[in-house]
Amino acid sequence: MQNILDDIAEQMRVRTDRGKVADYIPQLAAVNPNQFGISVALPDGQLFNAGCAKQLFSIQSISKVFSLTLALGKIGDAVWSKVGREPSGNAFNSIVQLELEHGKPRNPFINAGAIAVVDAIMMGHEPKELLAEILQFVRYIADDNSIGIDDKVALSELATGNRNASLAHFMASFGRIDHDIDCVLGAYYHLCSISMNCQQLAKSGLFLVSDGVNQTTGARVVSSHRARRLNSLMLMCGHYDGSGEFAYRVGLPGKSGVGGGILAIAPGKASIAVWSPGLDKVGNSKLGSLALEMLIQRTGWSVF
Amino acid sequence: MQNILDDIAEQMRVRTDRGKVADYIPQLAAVNPNQFGISVALPDGQLFNAGCAKQLFSIQSISKVFSLTLALGKIGDAVWSKVGREPSGNAFNSIVQLELEHGKPRNPFINAGAIAVVDAIMMGHEPKELLAEILQFVRYIADDNSIGIDDKVALSELATGNRNASLAHFMASFGRIDHDIDCVLGAYYHLCSISMNCQQLAKSGLFLVSDGVNQTTGARVVSSHRARRLNSLMLMCGHYDGSGEFAYRVGLPGKSGVGGGILAIAPGKASIAVWSPGLDKVGNSKLGSLALEMLIQRTGWSVF
Amino acid sequence: MQNILDDIAEQMRVRTDRGKVADYIPQLAAVNPNQFGISVALPDGQLFNAGCAKQLFSIQSISKVFSLTLALGKIGDAVWSKVGREPSGNAFNSIVQLELEHGKPRNPFINAGAIAVVDAIMMGHEPKELLAEILQFVRYIADDNSIGIDDKVALSELATGNRNASLAHFMASFGRIDHDIDCVLGAYYHLCSISMNCQQLAKSGLFLVSDGVNQTTGARVVSSHRARRLNSLMLMCGHYDGSGEFAYRVGLPGKSGVGGGILAIAPGKASIAVWSPGLDKVGNSKLGSLALEMLIQRTGWSVF
Amino acid sequence: MQNILDDIAEQMRVRTDRGKVADYIPQLAAVNPNQFGISVALPDGQLFNAGCAKQLFSIQSISKVFSLTLALGKIGDAVWSKVGREPSGNAFNSIVQLELEHGKPRNPFINAGAIAVVDAIMMGHEPKELLAEILQFVRYIADDNSIGIDDKVALSELATGNRNASLAHFMASFGRIDHDIDCVLGAYYHLCSISMNCQQLAKSGLFLVSDGVNQTTGARVVSSHRARRLNSLMLMCGHYDGSGEFAYRVGLPGKSGVGGGILAIAPGKASIAVWSPGLDKVGNSKLGSLALEMLIQRTGWSVF
Repeated sequence: MQNILDDIAEQMRVRTDRGKVADYIPQLAAVNPNQFGISVALPDGQLFNAGCAKQLFSIQSISKVFSLTLALGKIGDAVWSKVGREPSGNAFNSIVQLELEHGKPRNPFINAGAIAVVDAIMMGHEPKELLAEILQFVRYIADDNSIGIDDKVALSELATGNRNASLAHFMASFGRIDHDIDCVLGAYYHLCSISMNCQQLAKSGLFLVSDGVNQTTGARVVSSHRARRLNSLMLMCGHYDGSGEFAYRVGLPGKSGVGGGILAIAPGKASIAVWSPGLDKVGNSKLGSLALEMLIQRTGWSVF
Repeated sequence: MQNILDDIAEQMRVRTDRGKVADYIPQLAAVNPNQFGISVALPDGQLFNAGCAKQLFSIQSISKVFSLTLALGKIGDAVWSKVGREPSGNAFNSIVQLELEHGKPRNPFINAGAIAVVDAIMMGHEPKELLAEILQFVRYIADDNSIGIDDKVALSELATGNRNASLAHFMASFGRIDHDIDCVLGAYYHLCSISMNCQQLAKSGLFLVSDGVNQTTGARVVSSHRARRLNSLMLMCGHYDGSGEFAYRVGLPGKSGVGGGILAIAPGKASIAVWSPGLDKVGNSKLGSLALEMLIQRTGWSVF
Repeated sequence: MQNILDDIAEQMRVRTDRGKVADYIPQLAAVNPNQFGISVALPDGQLFNAGCAKQLFSIQSISKVFSLTLALGKIGDAVWSKVGREPSGNAFNSIVQLELEHGKPRNPFINAGAIAVVDAIMMGHEPKELLAEILQFVRYIADDNSIGIDDKVALSELATGNRNASLAHFMASFGRIDHDIDCVLGAYYHLCSISMNCQQLAKSGLFLVSDGVNQTTGARVVSSHRARRLNSLMLMCGHYDGSGEFAYRVGLPGKSGVGGGILAIAPGKASIAVWSPGLDKVGNSKLGSLALEMLIQRTGWSVF
Repeated sequence: MQNILDDIAEQMRVRTDRGKVADYIPQLAAVNPNQFGISVALPDGQLFNAGCAKQLFSIQSISKVFSLTLALGKIGDAVWSKVGREPSGNAFNSIVQLELEHGKPRNPFINAGAIAVVDAIMMGHEPKELLAEILQFVRYIADDNSIGIDDKVALSELATGNRNASLAHFMASFGRIDHDIDCVLGAYYHLCSISMNCQQLAKSGLFLVSDGVNQTTGARVVSSHRARRLNSLMLMCGHYDGSGEFAYRVGLPGKSGVGGGILAIAPGKASIAVWSPGLDKVGNSKLGSLALEMLIQRTGWSVF
């Protein structure tokens, strides 16, 4: 495994077609695109790293997996009255569909859906309390208490977040947001601003590898049933309008973020985190996707 | 396995919430809704049947898997210049997206996509020649020469097919249809009108279980690579706007048809066909989906 | 003329199909639906009233005519870089088109367009200053210094205005809002909350009757050219998705508000204000439209 | 008047920004763009021509005014169960709205609406019979028996008409087309292929100038009521997604065609036909619109 990762990291190191770094906030725009990291965590506790696997990055939308998991724990299937479970087409359709479907987002991994999930788990708490709870949860599943939030990123997101504010108010106009919109958005942006490195991220996904139990720590995070369903959601909806492409090329449940990270799960086999800041046209890490495709070809880990 | 299937068939027999039989053509509307069949084909050649597993039904959209497989064999990845690989939202969006994406259907399993695939494999042939080729291919992969087409269904489809004709002309207006539209639609409707029973359908899916090889007959149908990708497409797009729901509840690649059939693939394990004519709101067999959910719970065959 | 108005008012008084009063804020919901008023102002200064012509009501969207007129005076045709001049279909399409047209509202009389106009004329002022300017302008063109704003209505609008906030943030996400969104919305809601009676409203439209000059007071409000263009915009876009219907039945430039008021202009002949709180399905005063249709049949004032 | 027209024609003759000739069929693409004609017909029978006012051109969508007028005569207000009376946004929305509004076109002047009108007046006749009737009607209202149809244009339209065929099948899928689609489209394309010159076209509009009566011939074509409503529809919907712009700049009811012709009505004053083959971005004659704008500035004929 180490050889495979080293080889992949070397191939990634020399590539020149690295995609385009997200530039809508300065904190992301400033990231050096010539970085690549990969980590593989096995259920038996083994960890393999290559490249910048210990370099922190903003996990962005990958955090939506964590907030959804937490939501399922806190309110169970009631979360599905807030968001659906179907893939959503491109950004354009997100808005059309939000209107057609009376303000109910198609799934928890598009922005509107994640905002609705944050609203659902706020349950009268202050944003700070909720964030503390989320952070504690992420540290727990990743078995790493050093994980934190980059406040500068969160504040930048907030300052430029008109599209998300529009979505939140739009849902609220259908009576679908229970808390103060500024609080919900504040919590949402902080959630997106969790910083992790590949190793931490790979470890955080271990509970999805083994039917809800992080076998390394012994912690049962969710039921077997729910773990499988989280994986199905990641496969169907984890990469925005590139979900079909990712399933086609990689064949694993996964969730990407515009920070360039991807968490991928090979059920029963491994939790994988890759990171490279350059994005493809639909917003997924270009080298990250490619690296996963290579890894899967070498390991045969595709679920298909 | 036989016990599991018998048990499921018995549970399905007594249910009263059987969904609604498709009624847009008389041949489908006339089908008795109180039928249920299931077949499981294993790579080693074992076959398990329960219920009306040998009752013929119209496979309808399940045929889109076969036409796509054939297309990949005939023109390879050039098929992806004709159709995309992303899930498509509801019917409404299909049309919007077709416009936005300049007449290129989102995937080969929506009607527009399947029509484009038929056009792609027509390659100057007469519709009859193409149909003979498709039928031969289906008989080959199912290892059953008795499989045929129900012409009455095809003619009824043609007579009521204004929506499909609209889609075809719409694509043609973007220069995306190479052959005479009436010929393409004629071939498409005959393709949809293939009659199979559960046992035949289960056998036809065996090549998708074992990396492209039907291990029972030894026939290599597609490359390993391509078989996995067909499975990913079925998982992502196989059940129209219920694809996410099917992945969530069943967790297997599958393709449904409005005749009430579903073909599902458990990679490495089994090819499964179910049939019950009553449909749920998005057009997938209601008891068929439920039966698969039960089967997967008993067998643990979910890919997640 | 007085006989015509009395007759219409009497016919309106006894009708039972009065439409449905807007109920999204308590201040509008509480209005007695059994009211009807009509005023006709002639360029020579004559005024004819019937029914509750001196009962104040919330002019709501009718104010968009005043803010647009003011904007044309302040920044001239630069306003057309902010909003378009084409009719917009139903609410659904407003959002789709806003996306397709990169956040530029189709016309100044839909909510998004009016918000953009308010943003355009804010020009660094405080909302209070802007409101004072608008109010002064309305008093000037109506030649009535008693016209005021109903703050309770404005605050209610603000409290329930998630859809408008969504539109404003949406436009802002395309870089199309220059001022603080809360300030813009605050000003917008106060603008909508101007209270007028039919007589005041009819007088306020006189400048549109006579090529930009209120002949009663002698005040030139806009150029002849611009007055005619304001009329054309009112005809094309003045009644949301009922604009075609209004043009078809009444045949005059007009602007309606959900408070139940309508201002209609018969170029060269008269300015007409009607008010009845009950709305039809697309949000225009039901009896108001009917009364105008009757008035036009009696007077032949249709522009066609 | 003759001086005004001569002056306008001279100004148009020397302009170099003439727009782009429609090129989707060879018969239109071959038209020399350096042509301009204008005719004004007054109710008292006076006719003023300038430029190529006697050069035949394909009236294309202007014919939709004639088919609608005929339909109102044949089936009265029942035509409004087939088509609506609201403006339709851009082509994109036409399709979305057709879906949202269950196959009912927004108005009789978009292609889908005109196809529905042709279907409505076919009433079991053969296409040839219908065309004979339409042609007779156009000759009657224009008082000119030499008006004919250019069959080559019609056949070219038919050969390239996938978008229209798509619309027709789409409406048929909602049960909204009563006759054979090929017959309806055949009739529709022949209708669009009527050839007229500016003088004939101006004369054909005289009944819309004088409340339904062609005062030159004395023929009552439609009721006063209906003539005014036809004018309102032309103003609201006569120039596709440029209707607002035309109303804003010209201020007259009008209908354009991609052949470069425009028929405009100054109620009570004049019927005006202009022709110049180059089109602006939304498909209306560029110089034609400009010439009308100039004419209206000189004559003050704007309805506003």
